[in-house]
Amino acid sequence: MEVMNRYVTIKTQINGDPKESDFEIKCSSIVVSAQPGSNDVVLRNLYVSIDPYQINRLKTHSSSQNTSSYATAILPGEVIDAYGVAKVVASGNPEFEKDDLVVGMINWGEYSVLKGETYMLRKLDTMGFPLSHHVGIFAFSGLTAYAGLFEVGKPKKGEKVFVSAAAGSIGHLVGQYAKQFGCYVVGCAGSKEKVELLKEKLGFDDAFNYKDESDLKSTLKKYFPNGIDIYFDNVGAEMLEAAVANMNTFGRIAACGVISEYTDTNKRAAPNMLDIVYKRIMMRGFLAADFLNIYPEFLSATVDHIRTGVFQTLEDISIGLESIPQAFLGLFHGSNVGKKMVKLSDD
Amino acid sequence: MEVMNRYVTIKTQINGDPKESDFEIKCSSIVVSAQPGSNDVVLRNLYVSIDPYQINRLKTHSSSQNTSSYATAILPGEVIDAYGVAKVVASGNPEFEKDDLVVGMINWGEYSVLKGETYMLRKLDTMGFPLSHHVGIFAFSGLTAYAGLFEVGKPKKGEKVFVSAAAGSIGHLVGQYAKQFGCYVVGCAGSKEKVELLKEKLGFDDAFNYKDESDLKSTLKKYFPNGIDIYFDNVGAEMLEAAVANMNTFGRIAACGVISEYTDTNKRAAPNMLDIVYKRIMMRGFLAADFLNIYPEFLSATVDHIRTGVFQTLEDISIGLESIPQAFLGLFHGSNVGKKMVKLSDD
Repeated sequence: MEVMNRYVTIKTQINGDPKESDFEIKCSSIVVSAQPGSNDVVLRNLYVSIDPYQINRLKTHSSSQNTSSYATAILPGEVIDAYGVAKVVASGNPEFEKDDLVVGMINWGEYSVLKGETYMLRKLDTMGFPLSHHVGIFAFSGLTAYAGLFEVGKPKKGEKVFVSAAAGSIGHLVGQYAKQFGCYVVGCAGSKEKVELLKEKLGFDDAFNYKDESDLKSTLKKYFPNGIDIYFDNVGAEMLEAAVANMNTFGRIAACGVISEYTDTNKRAAPNMLDIVYKRIMMRGFLAADFLNIYPEFLSATVDHIRTGVFQTLEDISIGLESIPQAFLGLFHGSNVGKKMVKLSDD
Repeated sequence: MEVMNRYVTIKTQINGDPKESDFEIKCSSIVVSAQPGSNDVVLRNLYVSIDPYQINRLKTHSSSQNTSSYATAILPGEVIDAYGVAKVVASGNPEFEKDDLVVGMINWGEYSVLKGETYMLRKLDTMGFPLSHHVGIFAFSGLTAYAGLFEVGKPKKGEKVFVSAAAGSIGHLVGQYAKQFGCYVVGCAGSKEKVELLKEKLGFDDAFNYKDESDLKSTLKKYFPNGIDIYFDNVGAEMLEAAVANMNTFGRIAACGVISEYTDTNKRAAPNMLDIVYKRIMMRGFLAADFLNIYPEFLSATVDHIRTGVFQTLEDISIGLESIPQAFLGLFHGSNVGKKMVKLSDD
């Protein structure tokens, strides 16, 4: 059987801040069947993840493009890979059967056709949770928060943790893990509403709107009179510089993302290296994919908290394929609250 | 007995590049005796260390001045602390006797008068080596090189190591440790002669004069076509940026010093944070003082190599108290080859 598959792609490689006109919806016919023994699978996509890092695969140029598959260029007209949840509609792979729910690397389209020896996909055990949780907290957002805080940041009880983009997909979880572990946590976000959310709903000790602040170094000094022990960095640039200036001796920086630098190649953090040396600061870039070995530990540390309501997971879900470009653009203007994703189909 | 003690001090806190006129030699009378049981010691200084980091205690302002004793301000007229070797001329401390050779924190003067509960001083066992070695390789220069490479850089055999200021007090040792461990080592320095020295005498696999290069990123690409695994950073600024751009996945940066930024507060490294994240680079500031626990291991890993001539230690010794300011200024213009120190007295 042939069906028409609609998918989002770029018209041209993105230069600077992404615009709606950089994207288009294309249509191609796909065959909904798989040769037995071929390993091919065809999926109907249900939920797809919308992530800031994806810009680095869609840009004109990135110095990192050659160094990591996370930054391999996607060309105009090509399908855009994305993490998500899908349902198997045809399978040549004995691991998957028709109507199985699966989770892994699918794409910003109505269907995914996965071919070849390997692809990143596994059967989904929903554990009774909404499918969206398997795109957000139980997927890379959660693992990134958990691994970044515990494996990179290595907190001790009572330490002071600062989280930027704290109402974002990862930040809102970092803060909750840190609080629950026994740290003092302050987050920053880009609106009054987000700041309230962090303090009232997510249990952050304090939070501030960075857009209201003109001198971030002084701002952090105010929120951390005794210094920062761990900075979970999602943004880079001026906030990273201000955090380094306010860090304590033997402070750790978990460098998770650099959203403020993704769309502006001229924007660069220039942290004071004298501080790095004298305060023996450790800064480490990381990707959740390097911590798949602790996925079971992460999951067991998380599931009960979600079930019992100790943890709040924020999801920001748009509906329909057409909403993908706008959902993506919004990431760079702080439109999302929590994990951004798009629901493509009920079934 | 009273004697006149001449010592070097600053006339005014240093702003920018240090100048000879920032310094003066002062004279004060000191009492060469110590009350028994007082813990005081009076030393005749024999060799004193001349180190770049000392500028950070002599400057008008440093953001790090409040965060570490390594950066505590020294005021005009005050004695300037420095590591060195001395001879005890009077002691109230039962640990030390007249004529003992000692090593530790003394100062840029003819005599040191150490008072109070604690000071950093120990009896020196020369092990048959020249006294100068106990200011250089067997002191912080050696420990910094050893700890920075092995404890921070954590090399694996065959990995590629880049060292900046490679003909400096620490760099020339880092390269030899790394070579001896089985790494591929390239150093950079600021003159043709230093480059020759690195390649011919110290066994570096390769070396270059950074002053001959206009595009450091391309230069490093040429010397490390397969990327850098460990960067031992003594300089900061553009070289750090170029190194980050050329680092391999899971690369490590041992941030030891930032000499190019010490005298110019506007000069700042702005490494590409996308590289830090995507390549999972770890950058860690460190000070040798944090690794005193491995001093015995460091010493046993070093002594035989010096005795058998496997390791070369470079010392650059000026003579007499009057030479201290010039010796110090020279550090910021690459005048020294290896460990800079000043010999104050034969006895």
